[in-house]
Amino acid sequence: MTRRNARAKWIWLAGDFEIRHALLQNLQREERGFDWPAYWHVEDCCKSVVFTRRYCFSEPQTFTVQVEGSGYALIDGKKQPLNGLLTCPVGEQTLTFYVANASGLPALRVEGEQVFSDESWFASDYIDTAPVGCDALYTSAQTSPNAVNFEREPRLPVSERAMNGGVLFDFVRVVNGELAVSFNSDKQPPVTLCYGESQAEALDTQYCYYSQTNVTPDSAIRKRAFRYVFIPDVAPGAVSLAAEHEFIAKPRCASFHSNDPLIDQIWQVSRETFALCSDLFFIDGVKRDRWIWSGDAWQCTLINPYLFFDEDINRRTLLALRGRDPMRQHINTIVDYSLLWVINIEKHYLMSNDAAFVRQVYGKMVSLMEWLMPDIDESGFIRGKEGDWIFIDWAEIDKTGAVCAEQMLLLKAWRSLALCAEIVGADPAEWQRRADKLAESIDLFFWDEEQGAYIDSYESGKRHVTRHANIFALMFDTVTPERRQTIVERVLMNEAIAPIVTPYFTFFELDTLCQCGRQDVVWQRMRDYWGGMLALGATTFWEEYNPDIKGDEHYAMYGDKFGKSLCHAWGASPLYLLGRYYVGLHPLTPGYETFAIEPWLAPFSVLDCTLPIKEGEVTLTLRDNQLTVRASRGGGVLRLSGESWPLSAGQALTLPVN
Amino acid sequence: MTRRNARAKWIWLAGDFEIRHALLQNLQREERGFDWPAYWHVEDCCKSVVFTRRYCFSEPQTFTVQVEGSGYALIDGKKQPLNGLLTCPVGEQTLTFYVANASGLPALRVEGEQVFSDESWFASDYIDTAPVGCDALYTSAQTSPNAVNFEREPRLPVSERAMNGGVLFDFVRVVNGELAVSFNSDKQPPVTLCYGESQAEALDTQYCYYSQTNVTPDSAIRKRAFRYVFIPDVAPGAVSLAAEHEFIAKPRCASFHSNDPLIDQIWQVSRETFALCSDLFFIDGVKRDRWIWSGDAWQCTLINPYLFFDEDINRRTLLALRGRDPMRQHINTIVDYSLLWVINIEKHYLMSNDAAFVRQVYGKMVSLMEWLMPDIDESGFIRGKEGDWIFIDWAEIDKTGAVCAEQMLLLKAWRSLALCAEIVGADPAEWQRRADKLAESIDLFFWDEEQGAYIDSYESGKRHVTRHANIFALMFDTVTPERRQTIVERVLMNEAIAPIVTPYFTFFELDTLCQCGRQDVVWQRMRDYWGGMLALGATTFWEEYNPDIKGDEHYAMYGDKFGKSLCHAWGASPLYLLGRYYVGLHPLTPGYETFAIEPWLAPFSVLDCTLPIKEGEVTLTLRDNQLTVRASRGGGVLRLSGESWPLSAGQALTLPVN
Repeated sequence: MTRRNARAKWIWLAGDFEIRHALLQNLQREERGFDWPAYWHVEDCCKSVVFTRRYCFSEPQTFTVQVEGSGYALIDGKKQPLNGLLTCPVGEQTLTFYVANASGLPALRVEGEQVFSDESWFASDYIDTAPVGCDALYTSAQTSPNAVNFEREPRLPVSERAMNGGVLFDFVRVVNGELAVSFNSDKQPPVTLCYGESQAEALDTQYCYYSQTNVTPDSAIRKRAFRYVFIPDVAPGAVSLAAEHEFIAKPRCASFHSNDPLIDQIWQVSRETFALCSDLFFIDGVKRDRWIWSGDAWQCTLINPYLFFDEDINRRTLLALRGRDPMRQHINTIVDYSLLWVINIEKHYLMSNDAAFVRQVYGKMVSLMEWLMPDIDESGFIRGKEGDWIFIDWAEIDKTGAVCAEQMLLLKAWRSLALCAEIVGADPAEWQRRADKLAESIDLFFWDEEQGAYIDSYESGKRHVTRHANIFALMFDTVTPERRQTIVERVLMNEAIAPIVTPYFTFFELDTLCQCGRQDVVWQRMRDYWGGMLALGATTFWEEYNPDIKGDEHYAMYGDKFGKSLCHAWGASPLYLLGRYYVGLHPLTPGYETFAIEPWLAPFSVLDCTLPIKEGEVTLTLRDNQLTVRASRGGGVLRLSGESWPLSAGQALTLPVN
Repeated sequence: MTRRNARAKWIWLAGDFEIRHALLQNLQREERGFDWPAYWHVEDCCKSVVFTRRYCFSEPQTFTVQVEGSGYALIDGKKQPLNGLLTCPVGEQTLTFYVANASGLPALRVEGEQVFSDESWFASDYIDTAPVGCDALYTSAQTSPNAVNFEREPRLPVSERAMNGGVLFDFVRVVNGELAVSFNSDKQPPVTLCYGESQAEALDTQYCYYSQTNVTPDSAIRKRAFRYVFIPDVAPGAVSLAAEHEFIAKPRCASFHSNDPLIDQIWQVSRETFALCSDLFFIDGVKRDRWIWSGDAWQCTLINPYLFFDEDINRRTLLALRGRDPMRQHINTIVDYSLLWVINIEKHYLMSNDAAFVRQVYGKMVSLMEWLMPDIDESGFIRGKEGDWIFIDWAEIDKTGAVCAEQMLLLKAWRSLALCAEIVGADPAEWQRRADKLAESIDLFFWDEEQGAYIDSYESGKRHVTRHANIFALMFDTVTPERRQTIVERVLMNEAIAPIVTPYFTFFELDTLCQCGRQDVVWQRMRDYWGGMLALGATTFWEEYNPDIKGDEHYAMYGDKFGKSLCHAWGASPLYLLGRYYVGLHPLTPGYETFAIEPWLAPFSVLDCTLPIKEGEVTLTLRDNQLTVRASRGGGVLRLSGESWPLSAGQALTLPVN
């Protein structure tokens, strides 16, 4: 036997684990008895791969080999079967493993004392060779990279009530997993399970999204996300339910407690919501769509460091979204979402200082941006091809010709690409030049001095102003400080400009308002919007909330009476807003090598809050007008009332506040 | 219930059936206890597809839907589950089916009276929409396009002999299928199966390619190709074997009988060999490699019309080889094989008049040739990139710089592309221009007037002549008639030029010799080469035969004592040579709209031969110096002794011959 080696990991062609599992994820949407595959081009992993590693051995090596698939090893010039114990003699040796898997991801795990599979190996698709991919969730010999490595937690209904001739079970906490049904009598005929995120949905046996008929104690029951289950035509007590909730455990998690119970509850429910939408990837919602969207992922990347600080889910999601070269279609078919993917790499880098990841994806950033070139005009403006979706938001934006908000994204994308070029040691000049030229064109064509705002379109002649381009300009910092102030006053705080109505763009608007120091406004918006959902009994936050509608109308969206997702990742944005702009934590340099805490404490008399940072954490405690800040690592600075105090690693700093 | 509709077919994204099954085929090589995936980049089918068809119904329609995968139907604006009975109301209707299959080929079968899936449907990968693919083997509701639709035939050993302490079973006819083992006593311990294409291989329990240990009557036994099975350590009679041979039935097959028993046997064994290597695709050999090679496929495309006239296997093989765009690697990693793929499209078209197929692949022909451009110099010559394999043949070719034989292939490929451009209504001018320029350059740089031959390389200064470039020049008709004669005399019939040693290139050499009227020479070569294998007891023809070696040395190749394939498709070339140059049948225009029979009857006193043609067949009978020729279809002409006789459909023409 070989010695166990805790450093051994499953390895695969870099990016392919994510592409394979994204395929499976994007095929998981279910609706009223059918499957709804994502409506874009999906890809699968490469099915035949070569793994290699050079070694120099001073004594013969023995190691165990596990594969997902079949193939052979080439060791010391000899072909050998895979699986089981292999040996290699002394000397300079290149170990080569050929692994193919027609039905899933080809993967390899080698475990020996000196020989073990990890990041130092290489993989090839028989064309290109690059460092392998691996994942902290897939190290053990017992964990198949072709399955999702879920943890499981039993959940029982909190209440059951006889209703409508059947029984309604309320689990209170949303479950994403399988139900088990126990029949308490031998004579009980098969039952029907009707699931709901809302009570109304579960009780609507015809229109609930998920249902399963003819269920017996032996039935295989599909994994679904739900809070309620209604079983029609059974007597109370006749049937018992239990659920097994599946989730990916996160090693770290923030905590937040204040004197404001409503804000605390908003934070808690945001945490629950965000955790539910964060398995292998960030998905939009657990009931619907269960798909991986680049716009949603962008917002999740903002939220993530303030809750889990999980770099792995960022990487997985980014690799999943981009798929493989060549680009043939915009990510999720949306031009903005391709650009946000590029921008998101920079955001991930700022959080993680993960230059290796930037190196891994830089080629795909370049090929994505080069793929856009035919759609970019002489001014540097991008226009969608036929069939491309210039999304921005569900709003009355004048989309005639070049759309300003899209150019703001393009400008930021060129700048992100230029920065990443520098990180990987490539020449950023071309990307910088394109950014500069586009910035000039935007200024020339879209800035309206009279209105103190960017207009949507210059080609229509309407010179219509919406918040969107102006919010992007602030968010991506593509304006001068003077113009910034003008925009805040004449657009963001101007009630004559049509309000943002979607939670997707509300996220950006609140972010921008905070960036511009309007935490006071945002505080009230949070209490109203998220507090409004809580008042309606939400245990997770919704895809959208409109205080003007009533009752079961809240559950409708997209022309479907239960079309709204009631557990939607972007609903969790208070985690970000509170962490970034009230606790005020943010990195100043990549990977929090330096970072600032600029708290906005006006609404707080008590605060107990621990937020993760890269390889550390910061704790803020507010009691009796004393703020105590402690960072486990150096590099931090506390900024308060216009003054700065450096933070020493592990040492508490206490200041009076009023 | 809906009425059965015999016209309903399984449909899929065009080309994807072939890509998926090529993946499975190219992972089927087995060697001494391990799997050996093909050593090139392999692709898989698209996993999520949309099928559509527009109809106009005057009455409501009902139809059954079957899918491989999951998804939903969109009918009259309503989403519906797949599988089972669906209905559609009257009017203009677009039926849409979304089908995804993470573990295989997404496929659809719809069967109703007016609604049924067939070639008239369209499929999209969510980017491009094109006519669907389908296959004559996959029409019935019971036939899954994710399995190979084999027919099965029981085979029993013809003899069993006690040897080496065990029993040797000889099936005589090669089996490609599963063995079943019966134990004739309850006390029989598990046995080991050692397979062999030769007796020597089966008896070599250590080095035989395929073996399986610990076999009980319940063991699952892997599909393998073999003639012999040796079971060591059993008494005669203790164990019985039966096999189930798997094959794809071919609807048509030629027959050949003459006064020459050796030639008849060569034809029969060629038929057996070729049939074994022709399942869904042309593969090189049944034991080894079991892979799909473009060079081998080219030769198979030549042979095929003279035995099966199976257009489907041509199409499948061509689609499988090319895979999907973009080109990232030469087909089978070999530059020649990419070019032969292009040339092969023309050959298939000449046989089939299949313009629809040319339309399907024309874009991939163009993208392949355009992918070569960076490797083509100002003279029009192609040079391989680093890592590219300029194969031509296993022979002493001077491969310095541009290699002449490769340019001959490139020239023919440009001409094939130009012809296909005309077929699909595209502009052939650019391809014609490239061909003309290359022809000029070849003439200028490679033709050696003094030697009366094309030299291998002009850059080395050696002016070395091998047969290869000269054979290609004749085969692809890229020389003037005068030069043709010079080459035959000064290269082909010149013993000072190194002989062709591989059966791969021998095929081309014999083809060329016959083209140049040297059937007399080729007749003797056939008798010696293929007759030599028969004299050694061959029941299928080999990958290579060398009369100068003895005994078990015949089975060695590639440095492996049993490395030679003893059932290799290209070994069946006498089918082509006899049909094309002795019976003398060949199309004059695509799809045999016109065709000629130019028999070379010198060696025959008796001949009974039926060969398929497109939608018909021709029969030749020679008896008592009377030749009778009959074609079931019009368009034929018999050419004999410098004269021509048109053939009328179904009418026998009898002529005296001497």
